[in-house]
Amino acid sequence: MSTYLVQPENSAIAQSAGLTENTVKFGVIGYGYWGPNVVRNLEQLEQADVLTICDVSPAARNRASKLYPQIDVKSDPADLISSSKIDAVAVVTPVWTHYELAKAALEHGKHIFVEKPFTSNVAQAEELIELATRKNLKIMVDHTFLFTGAVRKIKQLLEDDALGKLLYYDSTRVNLGLFQHDVNVVWDLAPHDLSIMNYLIQESPEAIVATGQTHLNRHEDIAFMTVYFPNKIIAHLNVNWLSPVKVRTTLIGGEKKMLVWNDLEADEKIKIYDKGVNVTSQEGVYNLLVNYRSGDMWAPKIEQVEALHRELSYFVDCIQNDETPINDGIAGLRVVRMLEAASESLRHRGALVRL
Amino acid sequence: MSTYLVQPENSAIAQSAGLTENTVKFGVIGYGYWGPNVVRNLEQLEQADVLTICDVSPAARNRASKLYPQIDVKSDPADLISSSKIDAVAVVTPVWTHYELAKAALEHGKHIFVEKPFTSNVAQAEELIELATRKNLKIMVDHTFLFTGAVRKIKQLLEDDALGKLLYYDSTRVNLGLFQHDVNVVWDLAPHDLSIMNYLIQESPEAIVATGQTHLNRHEDIAFMTVYFPNKIIAHLNVNWLSPVKVRTTLIGGEKKMLVWNDLEADEKIKIYDKGVNVTSQEGVYNLLVNYRSGDMWAPKIEQVEALHRELSYFVDCIQNDETPINDGIAGLRVVRMLEAASESLRHRGALVRL
Amino acid sequence: MSTYLVQPENSAIAQSAGLTENTVKFGVIGYGYWGPNVVRNLEQLEQADVLTICDVSPAARNRASKLYPQIDVKSDPADLISSSKIDAVAVVTPVWTHYELAKAALEHGKHIFVEKPFTSNVAQAEELIELATRKNLKIMVDHTFLFTGAVRKIKQLLEDDALGKLLYYDSTRVNLGLFQHDVNVVWDLAPHDLSIMNYLIQESPEAIVATGQTHLNRHEDIAFMTVYFPNKIIAHLNVNWLSPVKVRTTLIGGEKKMLVWNDLEADEKIKIYDKGVNVTSQEGVYNLLVNYRSGDMWAPKIEQVEALHRELSYFVDCIQNDETPINDGIAGLRVVRMLEAASESLRHRGALVRL
Amino acid sequence: MSTYLVQPENSAIAQSAGLTENTVKFGVIGYGYWGPNVVRNLEQLEQADVLTICDVSPAARNRASKLYPQIDVKSDPADLISSSKIDAVAVVTPVWTHYELAKAALEHGKHIFVEKPFTSNVAQAEELIELATRKNLKIMVDHTFLFTGAVRKIKQLLEDDALGKLLYYDSTRVNLGLFQHDVNVVWDLAPHDLSIMNYLIQESPEAIVATGQTHLNRHEDIAFMTVYFPNKIIAHLNVNWLSPVKVRTTLIGGEKKMLVWNDLEADEKIKIYDKGVNVTSQEGVYNLLVNYRSGDMWAPKIEQVEALHRELSYFVDCIQNDETPINDGIAGLRVVRMLEAASESLRHRGALVRL
Repeated sequence: MSTYLVQPENSAIAQSAGLTENTVKFGVIGYGYWGPNVVRNLEQLEQADVLTICDVSPAARNRASKLYPQIDVKSDPADLISSSKIDAVAVVTPVWTHYELAKAALEHGKHIFVEKPFTSNVAQAEELIELATRKNLKIMVDHTFLFTGAVRKIKQLLEDDALGKLLYYDSTRVNLGLFQHDVNVVWDLAPHDLSIMNYLIQESPEAIVATGQTHLNRHEDIAFMTVYFPNKIIAHLNVNWLSPVKVRTTLIGGEKKMLVWNDLEADEKIKIYDKGVNVTSQEGVYNLLVNYRSGDMWAPKIEQVEALHRELSYFVDCIQNDETPINDGIAGLRVVRMLEAASESLRHRGALVRL
Repeated sequence: MSTYLVQPENSAIAQSAGLTENTVKFGVIGYGYWGPNVVRNLEQLEQADVLTICDVSPAARNRASKLYPQIDVKSDPADLISSSKIDAVAVVTPVWTHYELAKAALEHGKHIFVEKPFTSNVAQAEELIELATRKNLKIMVDHTFLFTGAVRKIKQLLEDDALGKLLYYDSTRVNLGLFQHDVNVVWDLAPHDLSIMNYLIQESPEAIVATGQTHLNRHEDIAFMTVYFPNKIIAHLNVNWLSPVKVRTTLIGGEKKMLVWNDLEADEKIKIYDKGVNVTSQEGVYNLLVNYRSGDMWAPKIEQVEALHRELSYFVDCIQNDETPINDGIAGLRVVRMLEAASESLRHRGALVRL
Repeated sequence: MSTYLVQPENSAIAQSAGLTENTVKFGVIGYGYWGPNVVRNLEQLEQADVLTICDVSPAARNRASKLYPQIDVKSDPADLISSSKIDAVAVVTPVWTHYELAKAALEHGKHIFVEKPFTSNVAQAEELIELATRKNLKIMVDHTFLFTGAVRKIKQLLEDDALGKLLYYDSTRVNLGLFQHDVNVVWDLAPHDLSIMNYLIQESPEAIVATGQTHLNRHEDIAFMTVYFPNKIIAHLNVNWLSPVKVRTTLIGGEKKMLVWNDLEADEKIKIYDKGVNVTSQEGVYNLLVNYRSGDMWAPKIEQVEALHRELSYFVDCIQNDETPINDGIAGLRVVRMLEAASESLRHRGALVRL
Repeated sequence: MSTYLVQPENSAIAQSAGLTENTVKFGVIGYGYWGPNVVRNLEQLEQADVLTICDVSPAARNRASKLYPQIDVKSDPADLISSSKIDAVAVVTPVWTHYELAKAALEHGKHIFVEKPFTSNVAQAEELIELATRKNLKIMVDHTFLFTGAVRKIKQLLEDDALGKLLYYDSTRVNLGLFQHDVNVVWDLAPHDLSIMNYLIQESPEAIVATGQTHLNRHEDIAFMTVYFPNKIIAHLNVNWLSPVKVRTTLIGGEKKMLVWNDLEADEKIKIYDKGVNVTSQEGVYNLLVNYRSGDMWAPKIEQVEALHRELSYFVDCIQNDETPINDGIAGLRVVRMLEAASESLRHRGALVRL
């Protein structure tokens, strides 16, 4: 992980060292909303090559063919998965198809890059991880946000202990969103925050409480999750498909400093406040002396690299150098386990579900 | 209630109608942070007169004496409460003292104006209400926010059905706050939102789920509450003493329109969005047709009157005309019941507590 | 002009009416920063076809060839200009080359679409207009902003007299900008505002005062322009290449209402304030009675169409239907005349230059 | 001046050192909008005492008497000015009365504190300065902004050379303002910015260009001023009584860093950007190599002291210790000279007026 943070230019070095015969050959399944971005970024990498794109929609196949006349475009994923020329498969399809496609790809000896959330349930994720381990294949779950300049900067601040002991993580991700017909708002929006939170907070989450409401559909369109961590760290997620305004704000409170990450700001996405509370106990717990500190605010410069580009470059790196990604199957499983727990808590109107 | 909304100038009319011999004589207990505002506003009313101020702190009494040489300043509230010259007592002291002071005042035949939250528990509130009813005295609980231009405007919009059927109420009230030594963050900050919510939402809340964490103190300093209402209305409150930034934002979603109330904006506190979602069921529940609407935004002009002034004027009005305030003991009790339920839910890490 | 405002879908109607044999064949000169956008949008129009792209840079030609294998890519504009297959030429090159290229294109009977500012001086613009008129050819100057949803909405508001008599137009367009080596900040940034202003304000500007400073270069990098119009309308432009923050804000004051256009807002780009001043003269000019009005604010929904797409579609329309564009050569000349006047005023440290 | 910046607590030290018999006795002329603030702050100072307040309006005198029963309240300033008990006179009246009142006070041996702008013209200011110098009396012109935390912080940054060589100063001060019947918008709003600018920029201004327009009144209600300084420093002021929104923003550009001061922000009034442009000349002036730097942003903590309190405390200090204030008569004259020049330039539609 430290390599990931300290030397992002690693892959470039490796590439120039003459490994081009090692180019990773990709098949991409799914060319709807996100698939075109995956293909575009893979095509920009020197160490990667897309041989085949697959989609069930003729319109999608048509778009792919026009833009990439040199790439084979198919309707049936089976050909792609069984092709001996392909080293890695990107599964960029709805979540309920992930397990079957990913399993087939692993069985045919392909590394897999899977859209988030990883799978529809914990059992599927565990089986895929076991299979990949047995066959010594890589799984990367597309937790794209981990590769943004903002999250990398926050990770660095936490590793440098700039905030001090962590107190809370409070995220709001709301807007008038596209309704998903097959999942609720938690499965749609929370994977972003859960993957970021798991990456930033070293502790393992202990339990989840989730509340919410279904207004227009069979699935919850507004939900609130509390996640309990050890050492009194608490996290909270507010996800909502019915908000008139778009909000993407996370507050992270530490004993030494606190930060606000507003992902909608063009510049100054992260503001670090030299603010805090000191508590000195005096003459028993009933007489606490509370001091407030309020100092400067500081907005560090954030790198402006496309996160997906960096992520896919890192995936190719991990394959070529046989390294385990930070966003491997286990990271994906952790998110799925929390989504499952949240859904169970939702069904019981906020009952505590232990992880 | 409609009178309150439609004719705020009522009391002024009444006053000019020659009722000045009816001036309500006040005693004010507590001259710390909020008490001076109560005294100042009462002194500005033609129909009210402050005869006595009482505070245990010599420094507070000193400040009061200097500013109001004509007012009697005492240390013992007993004199004030038993004085035959006084019609009404304002209790502007810590919550744990409310019950005893209010009870004594009611027993001596005084109307009472009590700082929020009304009492420390439900039993106390019920007893005070019963006592006031028996003696035909008024109770007003200081839910000041109900008298702001912003809340009055939102109430009017809801009464005019401008938003359509209500879907959710989502409020955030956070900052690096003054720690309260005797209560948690819910009892400190949530009474504002609970009183507003109860006023705006016609339905009675059914159940509460509250989660939170205690970091620096014996009491929770961060908490999240979900309140379930009938008809799928859901409310959520985010209160936090440890935030680096001050946030005072409420989202209210309706089927026709949605609004954002940002109380920190100097102008444009309320923005109403002509946005929404239409769902048409087609061929069974599995094929929903979802349409988004996105139209103009509109920020109505908000009156700029001091809320406490309007509230106290209305209290005097209610006494003089024997009317029941919108923020009477029952409104105060409703908030206390929800605070009690939230505390119980907090103790059980988010267990559902029915109201 | 009313057609342009009222029926933007006109060209689509025309297209479906079976005019496809009339497709306008384009040659595009310049494939640097803006040229690719022109080509992409022309290629998306049913009634337009790009036959040839021309650029002196081999790298630019390479990019064009890869993306558009079906388009002829050349280095010498002469071929393109003299080609009998081409109906219209888009000149998307530095301003000092516009005159020569546009003149040659007109002489070869081509309609021309010219990047703003139109020409390097007034004489060139006048000559091109005269030439086009003589040969009955269309000139469109690329004042793209006129085709944004924001400017169209403001135009509509003014045509509906929503603001009342216009008082002032005050624009700020600053950021840490790309230095232009061949022109000053006025020639670089002000053409946007001048073209918008000329479009919105019905009156003809009378005189200009411009001040500024040269810090790092041979050319002014910061400048301030005042433009005097008849009927006491005053306009002001603040342009700056050395600002730490990006600002794109225009205030437009009318007697009835005032508006703020912030082009950096994702939503709510235009806010209309029901604010104003009423002056009633009483007993001679020395006793004016001034009343302030302050009412609601309103942010109309703005269309989200790509401006360049609408502009090029409109250009094709004007060619096919022999109509004069709102942004014709005369509109381009008007901007050039003001830029020339501003430069002269700058040289004399703010001397008034009549137009 | 360094004392002023480095040791603001100086006067407190002096006071506690037993100089209380030296208390400065004040007479305050004018108890309209600003006068009450002057009286309140003087009354809070240990080293100052207000003996007499004077106002021509019976209502104003009434308000003063009620709030300060211990202070003598008069209608005729002559008594106050000639009183042997008074050491210093605060002139808080309309500008056209300053000269006469201040002159009389100086002739009677009083130090004077004069509302800004100092006088109605340069000749008056020069005469008052000459008179005060001859009689060894202090003049302080009420340039309150110099004593805000924001301006003090910016001054410190400039003294520490944090911004590098100054390039420009660009200020906007607009809103739907109170019309002044006796002066134009420049005389009403620009004194703030001119006094700040003169304080922050070490150079002496060389010339002014001012443009503007009169819409509703006999006086300009919108105006734009450019001020030329030596060493290519340029300043610009945008003042407007007819803006729908309030703006109080100043951009200050330096070669090393740039700052934005937004006085309407509750926190983070000043943001310092590590942004800039480096120009390296290569092979003659035609080949400039321009590099952009873009780094962190930093918002220093700003002191939250009432500026007028600090200013009056400093005035008392200057009297007691015979020191010359930073905002003395000469500073006041400098502003008046620029206002006079601006008015002259306005009359000639932007003609350059040398200072």
